[in-house]
Amino acid sequence: MMWTTGKKKDSRGDINGRARQGFLCNCSTNLKLLLTALLVICILVNLLQYLHPRILNFYPDYLHYCISHASSSPPPPPPSMLPAEIVVEPGIIRRAFRTYGWAAYNYIIIGAYRGGPSTFAVVGLSSKTLHLHSNASYICQWLPSNSTSSSTPIFSQDQAKIFPDWKLGLIYSVVVVNCTFSHPVNADNSGGKLLLHAFTSGGGDLNLNLTDTIEALEELPGGVDFSVFTSEPKYEYFYCGSPLFGNLSPQRVREWIAYHVRLFGTKSHFVLYDAGGVHPEVLEVLRPWMELGYFTIHNIRGEERFAGHYHNQFLVLNDCLHRYKFATQWMFFFDVDEFIYVPPNSTLKSVLHSLLRYTQFTMEQLPMSDQICSSNDLNATYRKWGFEKLVYRDVKRQLRRTRDRKYAVQPRGVRANGIHLSEHVNGKSTDLEDQLKYFHYHGTVAERQEPCRILTNSTELTVKSNLYVLDDRMVKAGDAVKRFERKTIGDRLLKTQQ
Amino acid sequence: MMWTTGKKKDSRGDINGRARQGFLCNCSTNLKLLLTALLVICILVNLLQYLHPRILNFYPDYLHYCISHASSSPPPPPPSMLPAEIVVEPGIIRRAFRTYGWAAYNYIIIGAYRGGPSTFAVVGLSSKTLHLHSNASYICQWLPSNSTSSSTPIFSQDQAKIFPDWKLGLIYSVVVVNCTFSHPVNADNSGGKLLLHAFTSGGGDLNLNLTDTIEALEELPGGVDFSVFTSEPKYEYFYCGSPLFGNLSPQRVREWIAYHVRLFGTKSHFVLYDAGGVHPEVLEVLRPWMELGYFTIHNIRGEERFAGHYHNQFLVLNDCLHRYKFATQWMFFFDVDEFIYVPPNSTLKSVLHSLLRYTQFTMEQLPMSDQICSSNDLNATYRKWGFEKLVYRDVKRQLRRTRDRKYAVQPRGVRANGIHLSEHVNGKSTDLEDQLKYFHYHGTVAERQEPCRILTNSTELTVKSNLYVLDDRMVKAGDAVKRFERKTIGDRLLKTQQ
Repeated sequence: MMWTTGKKKDSRGDINGRARQGFLCNCSTNLKLLLTALLVICILVNLLQYLHPRILNFYPDYLHYCISHASSSPPPPPPSMLPAEIVVEPGIIRRAFRTYGWAAYNYIIIGAYRGGPSTFAVVGLSSKTLHLHSNASYICQWLPSNSTSSSTPIFSQDQAKIFPDWKLGLIYSVVVVNCTFSHPVNADNSGGKLLLHAFTSGGGDLNLNLTDTIEALEELPGGVDFSVFTSEPKYEYFYCGSPLFGNLSPQRVREWIAYHVRLFGTKSHFVLYDAGGVHPEVLEVLRPWMELGYFTIHNIRGEERFAGHYHNQFLVLNDCLHRYKFATQWMFFFDVDEFIYVPPNSTLKSVLHSLLRYTQFTMEQLPMSDQICSSNDLNATYRKWGFEKLVYRDVKRQLRRTRDRKYAVQPRGVRANGIHLSEHVNGKSTDLEDQLKYFHYHGTVAERQEPCRILTNSTELTVKSNLYVLDDRMVKAGDAVKRFERKTIGDRLLKTQQ
Repeated sequence: MMWTTGKKKDSRGDINGRARQGFLCNCSTNLKLLLTALLVICILVNLLQYLHPRILNFYPDYLHYCISHASSSPPPPPPSMLPAEIVVEPGIIRRAFRTYGWAAYNYIIIGAYRGGPSTFAVVGLSSKTLHLHSNASYICQWLPSNSTSSSTPIFSQDQAKIFPDWKLGLIYSVVVVNCTFSHPVNADNSGGKLLLHAFTSGGGDLNLNLTDTIEALEELPGGVDFSVFTSEPKYEYFYCGSPLFGNLSPQRVREWIAYHVRLFGTKSHFVLYDAGGVHPEVLEVLRPWMELGYFTIHNIRGEERFAGHYHNQFLVLNDCLHRYKFATQWMFFFDVDEFIYVPPNSTLKSVLHSLLRYTQFTMEQLPMSDQICSSNDLNATYRKWGFEKLVYRDVKRQLRRTRDRKYAVQPRGVRANGIHLSEHVNGKSTDLEDQLKYFHYHGTVAERQEPCRILTNSTELTVKSNLYVLDDRMVKAGDAVKRFERKTIGDRLLKTQQ
C-alpha cells in the first residue's frame, strides 16, 4: 500500500550518479538508452494528458501513483491541459474546469512524540477547509531501521485525528494525530522511523487522493528510554507557555520568572515558545535561569508563515504537552502576564496533593487593572514590581468566568489540549473555587513603560464605567520574591528596564 | 473564445515524434545529446532540493522562476528538507515547520469573456480560506499574437475581484476577476491571448507568493466581432439556468419548456447547465427545442470535483451572465421548477418595456404545494400537467419574502450575479409587486412520480400546520401551452413519462 523511505533514498542516489555522468558527456550506450527510456516515460505520461478524457478516466490516479514513487513529497495535481470546451453535438457543449496551482499545505508538522511503547502523537497544522469539507485521513507506519524491501510494512491499527482549535483556525487548524500500533514498535531499541501518511481523500479535488508521506520521528539505535513511560517523572511542576511575540517588557518577565520559580521550586521546568517576543533584553533576564536549568526556549518564529489562530497558540500548547508528557507530574498552561496565587495557610504542594485524583483542574482569573496603583506608592512606584503596585481588581470582568480560566493537568492522561482547558482528557476534571487562582495583569507585559497612570488611596474606583476594588493579596509576596531572586542568581538583573 | 489549438498542437506533435523515435531506439547522436541535456536539467533542479538549506535560502523563488517558464502551472512549494530542530545554544532550540503537499487549487477557471473593447471577466473558483485570510490578487495581461520576446508586456490597469457567493463557499468560493486595460486590446483584430496571473500573495505560506499564469482566453485573427458591444442584442429574453442534477422528471421539464418558450417567444434563448440532471430521458424532451435553436446545454458535470456552494450554482450563473452578456436585452435567473407568471391584461413585453430604466428587477415567489390537487381533477390528474393540477398555495412560506425572490437583469449593466439577486449592478434595481411573479413547484421536478397525493375540493386546507389556499391562476394557461407545443414541435413528446 505504501512506499518506503529506504527505496526512495536508493533511487535518489542512483539518479544523482547518473546525472553527473550525463553532465560530463561521458555516457555509455547503455546509459543513453536508459536516459532515453526515462525521458520517454516522462513524455508518455505528459502525452496522456492530451488524449480524450474518456480514455483517461484513470488518469489522475495513475499519474499520482507514478510520481509518488519518485519523491517523498506528493506531486501537485497536474496542470489542466484539456481544451476549455468541446461542442459534443449541436447545442451541447462540454465545459472543462482547468485547475491551477496551490493554495495551502496538506500538513505542516512541528513534532512527533511517543505516548508509550506502541503509541505516538504527531502534532501539526492542516488546511482547515480540507477537514471541514472532506474526510482527510491519516495512518502511521513504523519503519524499522533493519527493514528490507521484502519486510511486511507495519501500519498503525488505530489513528485518531484531534482538532483542538476546531473552528478557530484560519487557513490552518491544528491536527493532532494519535496513532496506536497493535504491538510495541522498536521494542528491541534497534531504531527506526515513524512515517505519517496524510491523505487528502478527495478534498480540494474529488478526483484526487493525494498522499504525503511524512518522516515524523526518527529513533536511533538504543535511543529510546522505555522506562519513562512507567517511572516517576523528573519534575513535579512544568510550565508550558503560549507563543511570545511583540516588544515584551524585560522587567515584567523578570518579575514573572522570579515569582514562579520560587513558587514551583527546584523540581520544576519552564518552556517558553518564542514567536518573536524573546528579544535580546528578554533573553538577558532569562539567561541566569536558563543557566540553572529552569528554562528552555523554543524558537518557533517560523510559525508566522502559517495563518492559524493567534500565533498558532494551540499548536504550541499541544507540542509542549506531548513533548514533555512523561517529564512531569503536573503541567500548567497560562501566560506570562498571569501569576498563580496560593491562598495563605496552604502551599502549592498541599493543594496539588489534594487534587491527585483529577487529571485536570481549572483556576479562576482575578483580572487586574494595568494602570491603577495605590497613591501610597507615589514616590516608590518605579522601585516596586508590577504585582506589588497594580493592586486594583476589575470586578465586572471577573464575572465572565468560563473563558477566563487557565488550567493544569497530569499530562499522561491528556490526548490534546487547549487554551482555557483540555477537552481530551482521560479521567476527571474539576473547576477550583478558592484553592488556587491566578492574578491576570493583562496588557502589562506587552508595554514597555511604567504602568501606574492612575493613583488612588480609595478602596473602590470606577474607570470607564468599570468598578475596580483594592486587592493587595499579591503585595505581600514582593519582598520574599526579590530576596529569592537575589539569593538564586545574584544581582545580575538589578538594572533591568521596563 | 476558445484557446489551445495552434501553438500547443504543434509542440504536442513535436514531442510525439520524438517520443516515438526514442521508443524505437532509432535515435541519432544529436537526439541522444538533447535527451541527455533535458534530463540533466530535470535532475539538477531536483538535486537542488538536497543541498543544505543555508545554501538554498534563494531556493523557492529560484525554482519557481525556473519552472514558471517551462509550464503554465506553478510548482508546489518545495518539500521541507530542514532538520526538525536545532539546538542553537544550551536551552535554546530552533524548531522547523516541515511543510507537505497540497490541499486546494489556487484558481479553477471555467471561462473568460469580453466585457467590451478593453475589459474582460474571468470566471472561476478559488480557495476560500486563501481569500478570507490573505490578499490573494490578480492581474491580466494581453499577449498579442504578433508579440515577440522584446515586446513591452501589456498589463491590465484595473482588476476587481468579486466574490458573488462570499461566505457560502466550502473549500472553494467563486471569484470573478474583472480586468480593464487602459486601451482597447486586439483592436486590430489580429488575435492574441488573455493571460490571468493569479498570485497567492503569502496565503498558505507567508514566505511564498506563488503565481499561476492562466491562459484565460484566446482570440483568433479576425475572431472578435466588436460590433456586439454597441449593437442591438440578438435576443429579447434569455434564460440562465442553475445546475441541474439528480433524477429529474422528463414530463415536468417538458411542461416547463413549452410554457416558457411560448412566454418568451421567438427572440429568446435558454441555457441549461447539466451537473448530472440531463439524463437521456430529459435530453429527449429537450431535443426538439434544441433543433429549433431555443436551447443550449452546458455539460458541467466536472464541477462535482470541487466543493463549492450547492453544485457551484454561483459559478454557473456568473458564467452564463458574462458569456451571453451582449446577446440579450433581458436575462432571467430562476429554476426549472419555477414558472414566470404574467397577470391578465398585460404581456411580458409590456411589463419589461415599462422596466427599461431598471438594470435589475426581482419577482415575488408564489410557493405551491407539491402534492395537493383539486378533487375535481380526480380522474384526470394523470393527463393534466403539473401547473394545471398543483393548485394550492402555501400561505406561510410566502411570507419569507427576501430570500424567496428570483430576478432578471439587463446584463450589460451587471458585473457579477447571485441566486436571488445581483449585488453588483450599475444602475437601478426594483422589487416588483404585482407586475410579474413566479409560481414555485418546489420538489416536483426532482420526483419521478405522479405528484397529486392529497385531493380536496375546499378552497383552504391545512397540512402539517401549513395553510394552503386554492390558487388556480396557472390552470388557464394549460390548454394554450399544450397547443403551442404541438404546433411548434408536433407530437414527439406526447408519450413523455413522469
